[in-house]
Amino acid sequence: MNRFGTFFCVSIFGESHGESVGVVIDGCPAGLPLSVDDFMEDTSRRKGGTQKGVTPRQEEDRPLFKSGVFNGRTTGAPLTLLFENKNTRSGDYEKQRSVPRPGHADFVAHKKFGGFEDYRGGGHFSGRLTLCLVAAGVVAKKILTPLKVQANITEIGGEPDLEKGLQRGIDAKDSVGGIVECHVSGLPVGLGEPFFDSVESLIAHAVFSIPAVRGIEFGTGFAAARMFGSDHNDAIESMEGQTRTNHAGGIVGGITNGNELVFRIAIKPTSSTPKEQTTLNWETGEQETFAVRGRHDLCIALRVPPVLEAVTAMVLVDLMMRERRIGQVVP
Amino acid sequence: MNRFGTFFCVSIFGESHGESVGVVIDGCPAGLPLSVDDFMEDTSRRKGGTQKGVTPRQEEDRPLFKSGVFNGRTTGAPLTLLFENKNTRSGDYEKQRSVPRPGHADFVAHKKFGGFEDYRGGGHFSGRLTLCLVAAGVVAKKILTPLKVQANITEIGGEPDLEKGLQRGIDAKDSVGGIVECHVSGLPVGLGEPFFDSVESLIAHAVFSIPAVRGIEFGTGFAAARMFGSDHNDAIESMEGQTRTNHAGGIVGGITNGNELVFRIAIKPTSSTPKEQTTLNWETGEQETFAVRGRHDLCIALRVPPVLEAVTAMVLVDLMMRERRIGQVVP
Amino acid sequence: MNRFGTFFCVSIFGESHGESVGVVIDGCPAGLPLSVDDFMEDTSRRKGGTQKGVTPRQEEDRPLFKSGVFNGRTTGAPLTLLFENKNTRSGDYEKQRSVPRPGHADFVAHKKFGGFEDYRGGGHFSGRLTLCLVAAGVVAKKILTPLKVQANITEIGGEPDLEKGLQRGIDAKDSVGGIVECHVSGLPVGLGEPFFDSVESLIAHAVFSIPAVRGIEFGTGFAAARMFGSDHNDAIESMEGQTRTNHAGGIVGGITNGNELVFRIAIKPTSSTPKEQTTLNWETGEQETFAVRGRHDLCIALRVPPVLEAVTAMVLVDLMMRERRIGQVVP
Amino acid sequence: MNRFGTFFCVSIFGESHGESVGVVIDGCPAGLPLSVDDFMEDTSRRKGGTQKGVTPRQEEDRPLFKSGVFNGRTTGAPLTLLFENKNTRSGDYEKQRSVPRPGHADFVAHKKFGGFEDYRGGGHFSGRLTLCLVAAGVVAKKILTPLKVQANITEIGGEPDLEKGLQRGIDAKDSVGGIVECHVSGLPVGLGEPFFDSVESLIAHAVFSIPAVRGIEFGTGFAAARMFGSDHNDAIESMEGQTRTNHAGGIVGGITNGNELVFRIAIKPTSSTPKEQTTLNWETGEQETFAVRGRHDLCIALRVPPVLEAVTAMVLVDLMMRERRIGQVVP
Repeated sequence: MNRFGTFFCVSIFGESHGESVGVVIDGCPAGLPLSVDDFMEDTSRRKGGTQKGVTPRQEEDRPLFKSGVFNGRTTGAPLTLLFENKNTRSGDYEKQRSVPRPGHADFVAHKKFGGFEDYRGGGHFSGRLTLCLVAAGVVAKKILTPLKVQANITEIGGEPDLEKGLQRGIDAKDSVGGIVECHVSGLPVGLGEPFFDSVESLIAHAVFSIPAVRGIEFGTGFAAARMFGSDHNDAIESMEGQTRTNHAGGIVGGITNGNELVFRIAIKPTSSTPKEQTTLNWETGEQETFAVRGRHDLCIALRVPPVLEAVTAMVLVDLMMRERRIGQVVP
Repeated sequence: MNRFGTFFCVSIFGESHGESVGVVIDGCPAGLPLSVDDFMEDTSRRKGGTQKGVTPRQEEDRPLFKSGVFNGRTTGAPLTLLFENKNTRSGDYEKQRSVPRPGHADFVAHKKFGGFEDYRGGGHFSGRLTLCLVAAGVVAKKILTPLKVQANITEIGGEPDLEKGLQRGIDAKDSVGGIVECHVSGLPVGLGEPFFDSVESLIAHAVFSIPAVRGIEFGTGFAAARMFGSDHNDAIESMEGQTRTNHAGGIVGGITNGNELVFRIAIKPTSSTPKEQTTLNWETGEQETFAVRGRHDLCIALRVPPVLEAVTAMVLVDLMMRERRIGQVVP
Repeated sequence: MNRFGTFFCVSIFGESHGESVGVVIDGCPAGLPLSVDDFMEDTSRRKGGTQKGVTPRQEEDRPLFKSGVFNGRTTGAPLTLLFENKNTRSGDYEKQRSVPRPGHADFVAHKKFGGFEDYRGGGHFSGRLTLCLVAAGVVAKKILTPLKVQANITEIGGEPDLEKGLQRGIDAKDSVGGIVECHVSGLPVGLGEPFFDSVESLIAHAVFSIPAVRGIEFGTGFAAARMFGSDHNDAIESMEGQTRTNHAGGIVGGITNGNELVFRIAIKPTSSTPKEQTTLNWETGEQETFAVRGRHDLCIALRVPPVLEAVTAMVLVDLMMRERRIGQVVP
Repeated sequence: MNRFGTFFCVSIFGESHGESVGVVIDGCPAGLPLSVDDFMEDTSRRKGGTQKGVTPRQEEDRPLFKSGVFNGRTTGAPLTLLFENKNTRSGDYEKQRSVPRPGHADFVAHKKFGGFEDYRGGGHFSGRLTLCLVAAGVVAKKILTPLKVQANITEIGGEPDLEKGLQRGIDAKDSVGGIVECHVSGLPVGLGEPFFDSVESLIAHAVFSIPAVRGIEFGTGFAAARMFGSDHNDAIESMEGQTRTNHAGGIVGGITNGNELVFRIAIKPTSSTPKEQTTLNWETGEQETFAVRGRHDLCIALRVPPVLEAVTAMVLVDLMMRERRIGQVVP
């Protein structure tokens, strides 16, 4: 379903070329100061158009407050934010309807929703919906303050030097992927549950809701599979649980252990590449060559950090509420 | 919480050195033939003692049917299976209570549950609970028949040759990790939801409930972050969605696309290594050196395949039910 | 939380005197034809102003489609409907803030949300939110077609003759309550679950989300407690489960039995009565007399039937989906 | 499904004539002292055989602790209790399989579970499962201490004098119903949510999971529908929310208001009456007369009070946890 969280429950809705996208946050504590300005930094970080490698589509991306805010503070009732879609050019997409784009959800959406899906620009599957996640993340991060959730790109197109990685894509007239790493410090010991609601389970669940994510690893991650146990184990050094090393990435037995939470995700190269590609034409049943038109990103990973921070913060607020560390009214 | 799934809801309970571990499956379709023998292959695959690299603890691991089966078939009411713990030696653990073992949940469990946790052998955090997952998986895999869920170890201790990898650990008197890969073929197009209940989200959620998992990647995974888009995209070749390549691992836009589902997980080296290690003594507040006694695995990854199949099958049954491809009575 | 349903999940938001109220329906099947006109009959039935006994507040109550509809049909993505609040007169309420109105949520909302609640006109607790329920009900009833959900008032102010009951209230310069009965025919046998998700449990859960409901009874209801078993039992007469009598109201063991579903609810008299009343003044800590100003209903029960149909239909769609009788695409 | 609660999640399983019935409580706080003796009073109150009007079936009804208790206290891990079924006489039921008993779930269970249901003694639909509810209630009531949940029978067979009511049934050689009232005092202000998770919604949901309940009313209940608003409104008298009257039964706007919680439920007469009845024979398709044999209650309402207390306490613990008034470790 299109909602995530038990206590801090985020529901997203909307389509890329519909009238709007939006988000309802049910369970937001009362008393949190909230203004439009709070959102502009993160929606800007996420937005295309100001950076080499991102789509020229320009949206204002200012939230309209529809419910849940009164006199500049949250009320405890559901908080609804709407973002209007103004700068859409659906004509770009309609002519391609019979040609499902490789790497996109066109084919599966058509099968799943019986042809009734809004296919324009990916419809409800569009990356535009991540704007709703970012908005929820702004609220979540405010609630978590002074705790800090920080995501950074560590690699683009296989290069730690990001400019170089982007240039590789430009030179090849192709799209490139990247790696994004997230850090959270200041977490209490004891968040998470054994087994099904481990912190890794909940974060991974949320993270794979970001389009284009292909993998996630915590702490030392895949490299841990090649280490000896005595090297991988983090020796506990203090009564608060501080460990000498942090191979575990801040989670043991599914529970936060008081160290920095660290994980990394892999972002695939943008599916809409300028290169010519082959796909099936549903109407003719034949293979055909096509090039994706419309406005697209050279590297979608560039826009991921605020989205990754958002879903991480959503998970953490929910966990802090479950553990009764955050109440129904902000202090 | 200790349950997973909406339609096919699996709840696990028990402790390593308590009286028993068990599982309740709520939502199991009626009419499925089920006998104790159905469980023995997978509980055997998971069990220690028959293979180089696994713990000598020997349990019979035969399920006791407590509810939900009548005349050899499931009834549609909750199915409860109990496994008795017979071969426990708690004395091994009690003397170490003041020394939280590195890499284990001892420290976080103590903090989270205020010292009331059953600390013997990891208590409820123990890998013994994966027996319950395996049991649920046996039922789930039966329901999915003829669809096949298959997990295999592809790497131990950094070596594709598994014997060699284990020998590395033995030679070093240390423990080693591994990589396990899972394949499912025959899935219909259209399972999963956009965003929060993407197939990757649900599988990752379930997979990180297996102790010792440090990462997961779908299809080409982390390597995708280093590919060009035109290389990564899978060209659609047939009206059923078959693609020429399968970099996506069978999932696009969070939805199954009719190709083989493929993903890999990283398993850390067993935390209980024979090597001496340093940790904190809670009572003295001092660092101290200790060696884990008790019975333990050289490489826990060896026991993971049936557990991985189990949680994967649980997710798939739940998704198939959500999409109304499996009903309340087996055909 | 402000959502109901597992598969057909309805989330409501908004405040009486905020900018808008609205609803997100997650899980609506794709392909359902839907237009603004579909909503006007039920929003009209619920609306005040056209009938003796209801508030003169006039709102247009036309839904704005914000997501989930494309080319006149639902897409399978979340369906969002917004209703603007235009005809608000908040001044009526603000002067009374320090005087919590008896029978209203003013006091509890203030305590629960730390004084940050939107108190104007009851804020999020307002009966205006039932407009969102009615809107969700329109969609649910369309999905259930040709099955019919029908609610009727059977008693007002203690009188089966409704005009007479209203007149009693008018004569007394007071407000009155009523009884509303709901019938659903054509339900299949087998909806519902034993124990916690019995049909009665789910319907009662939904029904008590309607403000002012004080009781619910199924079939013969409270009168059953005074019958002999042999009189109360409904003799089964056909292989489809038709019974001679219907004391059970169409549900046995928590499961629909193929007979008409029948239940009744009690609606308290409108809390905002024109009569002078005594309450506490928070600021002074003293009792004080006051009369509710603002626009209010003589008998809120008059507006309940479409709301009752709505929540009943929501429950039934959810159950039909759970039992896989309704799929993700309408036929 | 067979589970209830978000934080304090109770799952029940088992069949009347299977090996056992049981309950898993997931989310029980750690540190609660718990012994077998804690259960005996309530399982006794619920048990048949010691009182005029209840079935002579005798079970010991002592819980076996299967998980979640260590050194006499809960551990925070799932708590599992098992009750063995010893005193079953299935032969009583098997001969009647083709004759679905009126008022029982035989017919609907058969339809729903395709004939695979355990039909002996009502199988999973049996009132024996309420033993699991009572057990969960014992735990919930301990957690709520010193707050007190108290249910009492107020009417049997239409008579406030209970002996007289039972005698009516005995004289008529028939079964009778009753009314049970529940009181909870000491609740804080602010439990519950507006709309869908109102306290009434949650309690009603839980209460209708008790077999034989036909109606519920809060405070003045159905009688409120015949009152004037000015009579029904409860004047607030203190800063803590104490009201002069308590027509609301302690809940306003779905939220507890600091007054006594009061509600009543109607229990139908036992379906298994000694009287001859008519029903359908599935095999012959003909009506036939039969008399229920086996051991049964003259008045099932007699056994309801501890069950009603149990489900009420379950709801309240869950709500208190949601509002962070109860944590993961008991004080």
